[in-house]
Amino acid sequence: MSERIADIGVLGLGTMGANLALNMAEKGFKVAVNNRTVEKGYALRDENGEIGQNIVPTDSIEDFLSRLKAPRLVLFMVPAGPIVDEEMQRIMPLLSPGDIIIDAGNADFNDTLRRSRLVEETPFHFVGMGVSGGELGARHGPSMMVGGARETYASLQPILEPISAKYEGEPCVAWLGPDGAGHFVKTIHNGIEYADMQMIAEIYGILRDGLGLAAGEMADIFADWNTRGLSSYLVEITAVTLAEKDSDTGKPMVDVILDEAGQKGTGRWSVIESQKLGVGATTIEAAVSARSVSSRKAERELTESLYSSVASAKAEFHGDKDGLNELEAALETAKIIAYAQGFAVLTAASAEHSWNLPLGEIARIWRAGCIIRSQFLDDITKAYDGAEPPANLLHAPEFVARVSAGESALRRVVAKAALAGIAVPALAAALSYFDDYRRGRGTTNLTQAQRDLFGAHTFHRTDKDGVFHHQWPAV
Amino acid sequence: MSERIADIGVLGLGTMGANLALNMAEKGFKVAVNNRTVEKGYALRDENGEIGQNIVPTDSIEDFLSRLKAPRLVLFMVPAGPIVDEEMQRIMPLLSPGDIIIDAGNADFNDTLRRSRLVEETPFHFVGMGVSGGELGARHGPSMMVGGARETYASLQPILEPISAKYEGEPCVAWLGPDGAGHFVKTIHNGIEYADMQMIAEIYGILRDGLGLAAGEMADIFADWNTRGLSSYLVEITAVTLAEKDSDTGKPMVDVILDEAGQKGTGRWSVIESQKLGVGATTIEAAVSARSVSSRKAERELTESLYSSVASAKAEFHGDKDGLNELEAALETAKIIAYAQGFAVLTAASAEHSWNLPLGEIARIWRAGCIIRSQFLDDITKAYDGAEPPANLLHAPEFVARVSAGESALRRVVAKAALAGIAVPALAAALSYFDDYRRGRGTTNLTQAQRDLFGAHTFHRTDKDGVFHHQWPAV
Repeated sequence: MSERIADIGVLGLGTMGANLALNMAEKGFKVAVNNRTVEKGYALRDENGEIGQNIVPTDSIEDFLSRLKAPRLVLFMVPAGPIVDEEMQRIMPLLSPGDIIIDAGNADFNDTLRRSRLVEETPFHFVGMGVSGGELGARHGPSMMVGGARETYASLQPILEPISAKYEGEPCVAWLGPDGAGHFVKTIHNGIEYADMQMIAEIYGILRDGLGLAAGEMADIFADWNTRGLSSYLVEITAVTLAEKDSDTGKPMVDVILDEAGQKGTGRWSVIESQKLGVGATTIEAAVSARSVSSRKAERELTESLYSSVASAKAEFHGDKDGLNELEAALETAKIIAYAQGFAVLTAASAEHSWNLPLGEIARIWRAGCIIRSQFLDDITKAYDGAEPPANLLHAPEFVARVSAGESALRRVVAKAALAGIAVPALAAALSYFDDYRRGRGTTNLTQAQRDLFGAHTFHRTDKDGVFHHQWPAV
Repeated sequence: MSERIADIGVLGLGTMGANLALNMAEKGFKVAVNNRTVEKGYALRDENGEIGQNIVPTDSIEDFLSRLKAPRLVLFMVPAGPIVDEEMQRIMPLLSPGDIIIDAGNADFNDTLRRSRLVEETPFHFVGMGVSGGELGARHGPSMMVGGARETYASLQPILEPISAKYEGEPCVAWLGPDGAGHFVKTIHNGIEYADMQMIAEIYGILRDGLGLAAGEMADIFADWNTRGLSSYLVEITAVTLAEKDSDTGKPMVDVILDEAGQKGTGRWSVIESQKLGVGATTIEAAVSARSVSSRKAERELTESLYSSVASAKAEFHGDKDGLNELEAALETAKIIAYAQGFAVLTAASAEHSWNLPLGEIARIWRAGCIIRSQFLDDITKAYDGAEPPANLLHAPEFVARVSAGESALRRVVAKAALAGIAVPALAAALSYFDDYRRGRGTTNLTQAQRDLFGAHTFHRTDKDGVFHHQWPAV
């Protein structure tokens, strides 16, 4: 019997698993690793110098489990989906009471709910953990969103905190709630990421097609914006990617990259779950749908040829200081609205699943390590950490002030884009949502009248309680 | 043993079931009926004069089934969901080979797929049928969308055609494909209905809040529009509801109806299924989300109080002839785009499920009987019935001409609404989708660059084939 020396085991040595194992090893933890191709574990040990000394490669699942200290911490980093179930079935018969399985992949939280219930029937524990930050985050400090029993988290915390990203010294990892809470929050994180990226792409479209700027000029603009309110990883890398040249052609990289982006998994799930919860997440939906449209390039080219005579009004965008300030303010305002939608989905899910999600804590662990990291998230943390957390981010005084200051810029940008024929689905969705949500008296009274006429759906009245049906004239 | 005299049996005598039974009875069919409260069947017979003579009330499920001619046609009109499964389990042991179960409720097509597979293992047949038109449609002629085996439809056709709505003499019922095809098409019909109603509500919002018109004035405008391109049941009833007065207060009905509309079922399913298919249905999503927003009235009122100083530009809408023409053209153009999205979802679902959906036929059976019925659907039928059906409705010459003629009006209306602070989520979504879809070169090249930088997601190039990853500068 080999000695049980490893603090944790990592199952699956793809990009994320290998980097997370090295991160743990660097922080001084002994990490047993196992992979279908066992050689990967040995390579990880042998090719990483001193850090590699903390990697314990294993030849079989039995060997792997035999090296783990009790209670065993078995972290899965395998592709989301049925493989997780297969691996669980494979290792559960070999575990001891109190052992902990951590699924750190990008699971659908509905699967995590199901697996949590399954493992509850056993003497083991199950944790669903969202990990954000990509390859570099996994290696040097990801943001981690943990769902499971609070007591179980206590066993993980001593390892997860040291390997996590830090924001002003604070670890970007937290226990967020039971069962599917961690993976749900990761899903919405990614949905917000879709919206954030789409809005940046729309502003890029205005700079390129409305102002006729070259990639390098746009890089400077985004780099400048990154020094103020929009400061964030995504705006920073926008500047970096726009500045980059293709060595083959000498052209800007963005000009040789095809405009077809995929969408699936977490972006799509964000929209589906928000629909199930009855919460409008129109900016996320606009972003996911824009990727769908982008993937139909041949159709778009045909459409362009058919509508070549479209009567766009002369673009009224200006590249002077005022014009750029307007775009900056519009992007910042729309971004606040998109994040408010994302947090509204979290708020509804928290109630639906009795998770009691700590919204301030969620913003706190997104401040570093993950793709949407930014100073802005610190402001969200402050909004939720106050004495009276707002029902919606748009009600927090700080954001009321910022949106009030920026909304006229957003109006002008959406209006000009509409006239100029430049697609701004997410920016327009943000503005429409804001204008709908800030209206005490909306227009679905007409909708209710129609539904009562054709389907006897009944309605409420503004002037008295009760449920009413009206005898409409025959149509 | 009682005589087997009934041509068909209706199980469930709620509003829809009772009216469908009367419709059949009126057309000369003997209809056995059964309901948990058996008295309802007797009342249906006794309270409907001569028509009632064709109604055969029954006291038990055995009695009910014993009155049906072979092969039995058992039409379920019970609430969608588990009750359908329960009733199926209850009657299947009592059926004979060749008998046909027809679920005519508003089923989730995924349930219909599952039930179809289940019944395939038996000597019986299963049909999932969408019925549109509400109470009046069921009574006097609904639009019916049938999914199941083609041979099975042959047994139903002699009853369904006479009871269906007619458009210029043609019956609004058709076999659309196997298993879930009928219920899927009904779901998207309802999704389109959501978008159509929302766009009408947004124009109503502009007339009310942008032009300050009273309900009666707006009724005249919609009645006028109903004489031209927008002619449709929904525009017709918009005029009717706006003209209606509340007898209690003397005010227009729409002014005393609360602006809170529910959303669930088919609207939500339309969005979820379009997401699963990777097709942007942003106008439907905007409509469903707008209902979600509307249901949060207290939150909206709070938001209004917090943003009372929002700097909407002076509304530039005009109530003169040109101004109204512009709104009419904008609504008509946005409506075409919304229907194009709905049909794009049907196109994708047809491929995904190998249904080979007859798109022209679908538009044809929607021309009468259902809620979205209109002259406009006849134009869609013509677009799909040509020698070369378009990949997207926006490619059909007729619609290229109409959208080209109307898009500048849609641009101006969306732009003015943005400046005036009037929410137009569905109109704006339509315009954004059009501008995105008619653009050969979009902006997701930037998105792809970002994804490759932070996640090594790779990209395609515009100038050569292959999959590429770039070594971006460290960030």
